Amino acid sequence: MAKKVKGTVREIGELGLIEWIKRHMPTNASGLIKGIGDDAAVLIGGEIITSDMLVERVHFDLRWQELTKLGRKALSINLSDIASMGGFARCAFLNIAVVPYSDWKDIESILSGFSQAARDYGVAIAGGDTTASPGPLIISVTVVGNSTRPVLRSGARPGDLVYVTGTLGDAALALRLAKAKGKNPGGGQNMARIMGRLTNPTPRMKQGRMIGQYASAMIDISDGLVRDLGHICKESSVGVRIRLDDIPLSESYLFVKGRIREKSPKKLYHEALKGGEDYELLFTIPASLAEAVGRFADSVPFTKIGEIIEESEGMVIVGPDGDIPLNPDEGFSHF
Amino acid sequence: MAKKVKGTVREIGELGLIEWIKRHMPTNASGLIKGIGDDAAVLIGGEIITSDMLVERVHFDLRWQELTKLGRKALSINLSDIASMGGFARCAFLNIAVVPYSDWKDIESILSGFSQAARDYGVAIAGGDTTASPGPLIISVTVVGNSTRPVLRSGARPGDLVYVTGTLGDAALALRLAKAKGKNPGGGQNMARIMGRLTNPTPRMKQGRMIGQYASAMIDISDGLVRDLGHICKESSVGVRIRLDDIPLSESYLFVKGRIREKSPKKLYHEALKGGEDYELLFTIPASLAEAVGRFADSVPFTKIGEIIEESEGMVIVGPDGDIPLNPDEGFSHF
Repeated sequence: MAKKVKGTVREIGELGLIEWIKRHMPTNASGLIKGIGDDAAVLIGGEIITSDMLVERVHFDLRWQELTKLGRKALSINLSDIASMGGFARCAFLNIAVVPYSDWKDIESILSGFSQAARDYGVAIAGGDTTASPGPLIISVTVVGNSTRPVLRSGARPGDLVYVTGTLGDAALALRLAKAKGKNPGGGQNMARIMGRLTNPTPRMKQGRMIGQYASAMIDISDGLVRDLGHICKESSVGVRIRLDDIPLSESYLFVKGRIREKSPKKLYHEALKGGEDYELLFTIPASLAEAVGRFADSVPFTKIGEIIEESEGMVIVGPDGDIPLNPDEGFSHF
Repeated sequence: MAKKVKGTVREIGELGLIEWIKRHMPTNASGLIKGIGDDAAVLIGGEIITSDMLVERVHFDLRWQELTKLGRKALSINLSDIASMGGFARCAFLNIAVVPYSDWKDIESILSGFSQAARDYGVAIAGGDTTASPGPLIISVTVVGNSTRPVLRSGARPGDLVYVTGTLGDAALALRLAKAKGKNPGGGQNMARIMGRLTNPTPRMKQGRMIGQYASAMIDISDGLVRDLGHICKESSVGVRIRLDDIPLSESYLFVKGRIREKSPKKLYHEALKGGEDYELLFTIPASLAEAVGRFADSVPFTKIGEIIEESEGMVIVGPDGDIPLNPDEGFSHF
């Protein structure tokens, strides 16, 4: 059953494809402060622009993804990229491709969810494209925002402290269980909570703007903590040391992990380290500003998980048995 | 074989879907001069933003769409929207979903075409998204540009003259023949020319910027002349009278039409009136400025095809047997 991989996109990989684009395409323009290589592009006037696509059976599965929430999620994941630049969102462009014989009520639910999220976050729908699809449902969204102090991935410096908002791993754990069952796994409020993190993530807009006034680097965790730490390290030319014990896990995550009998430390943190789609903010703060930022911690829960070190020291996680090197390539990939 | 249409998106139609979005979604924001309802959105700083999606088997067919040209086209159709606002393009966001087992050489051809077009028109690739697709190849592109004088669809006034750049119908005629054969129909340079109009359209950037200094309304012809005239009439609350004889047809179009023995006036103009994907500019000019604009006609071929009339007079085409009312709904639809 093994398909031929040689010479395919699968062999090149998502990173290879992005590298090709960076190497071959024109990527610089006057007025473009930051292009490819961050959560969003930054224009000279402070405009922040991001664009992401959701494809059925790749990014979501209608066996467990409720439609109204899908509409919300299509906007939220883009808003999360704006949040991670310390920005606020102004308007969105919605491109949607649907099978013509789809039930209109279903499509209306998706659009309603998108609309609700737009109202919740004060975003205007300014345009887009509607078309037919031969099969998968496709939603491609672009959001335009602004930031007075755009926070890039590239500003982390040795000595900076590393934080994350909220808790990690819930969405990836939910996805794993839904995939195993082929449907919404049901099973009580803890299960429902982690499913909610998967199917209806919350973009950390308020947090992004508060933290954005102080952060030296920021990214939203969409590819998983380890991989997104890798993005900050690569773009900032630094290393990082994080402590396994300090990674914030939700009660629901711990409850469900207990139920499925995964309590060895390595397995306990698996989804929190390598799962995707947390949509929490990962950020670095110069140590001198830690106190100022700490004042926000009541209204915006966040947790210190480590510190930035020299690039030559690499990426390290401190576990119960000592230091373990982290491989930033071990994260989530679509290919 | 008839599928159930009741209650489906097909029944609602593309216009119904867009109407739903306009009615239910938040569409206004401070700083948004023009949102849904024009070729591109206009922000208060003069930024022009447009986003369009190409889906395999809906917008293109790889049996006759060469891949490098597909990459070019994905950018060009968005640039055409910027041109129709009298703008210039600054940067583009490329979202592409490909089947992981696709031949990398094929995907590289598409990306190369996109890159070539970006260089040709001075556009930087500023971001986007790469992902897997379960089947169709999907390319969703957003372009950000600027215009010092954004030309909307809504500025046409009775007495204004109506023009189009270039010639009409070539792409639709090519599509019809390719569909009939199930492949590139081949057959000499005239056939090759109209196929080129379909598979590799040219955005009228230079023309858009020159004409944009004078035009009262402008749109790019993507849905077909009649339907796009309808968009201008609706948004401007005016009517229009055009003359069938004045609609510009290319020599290649006339040659191919002759070969397939369609010479009755009604059939001769069919694709030029109702076909889509011309990507020429349709614009209106106040009569007092016609002379000034006429000076461009050497470097930027365009043709006067009629004039704007009162809304109460409707949309009319003057044919060999007198006036015929035009139905703007008879155009191209994806559903």
